[in-house]
Amino acid sequence: MDPDAVAKAFVEHYYTTFDANRTGLANLYQEGSMLTFEGQKIQGSPNIVAKLTSLPFQQCQHSITTVDCQPSGPAGGMLVFVSGNLQLAGEQHALKFSQMAIDSRLLVLWFNRCR
Amino acid sequence: MDPDAVAKAFVEHYYTTFDANRTGLANLYQEGSMLTFEGQKIQGSPNIVAKLTSLPFQQCQHSITTVDCQPSGPAGGMLVFVSGNLQLAGEQHALKFSQMAIDSRLLVLWFNRCR
Repeated sequence: MDPDAVAKAFVEHYYTTFDANRTGLANLYQEGSMLTFEGQKIQGSPNIVAKLTSLPFQQCQHSITTVDCQPSGPAGGMLVFVSGNLQLAGEQHALKFSQMAIDSRLLVLWFNRCR
Repeated sequence: MDPDAVAKAFVEHYYTTFDANRTGLANLYQEGSMLTFEGQKIQGSPNIVAKLTSLPFQQCQHSITTVDCQPSGPAGGMLVFVSGNLQLAGEQHALKFSQMAIDSRLLVLWFNRCR
């Protein structure tokens, strides 16, 4: 399967799950996963999901502007870089965000930086 | 040495070199490096530097807003995620950009996405 298509499918699945049911993201993180959220580093699937479900908004909708992917390492891993907008319920303006993921040795890492 | 300090020093060195002498970036890429620039994938140090030196501006100044880093894999690699502004000579408004690098097995990969 085309790596770019895999990356796009993964990104679509991630944000659809984020917007509909954040606790469902637990399956996408491993024990060794790390999330950097606005500079704060959070380790492991339970802690990451606790952070994401505690964000101070209930309803949100991500829209993706760009998805870039590159091969990562000899084990068939993949880096994915995403940019887009995050619309919160009741807010007039969307937030811009960039995020990246690496999938290698069953490790998924996420950066999140709204700005 | 603190990984965050290493990441910041690397990022500072990269953008200082970019702004002062783009051909000097050749030493920071390997043959296996890949640059994704505005969706275009470019492989190998010579091709990457050719792309960066052919950009349609001569003078520019990067200013860094955020640098996040995470460990990557068991070999001591590091992922770095950068966001900031790019000011071009003669332009009133700065461009916002996000970029990331991974340093593992002597492979450096860059994404670049101005928006």
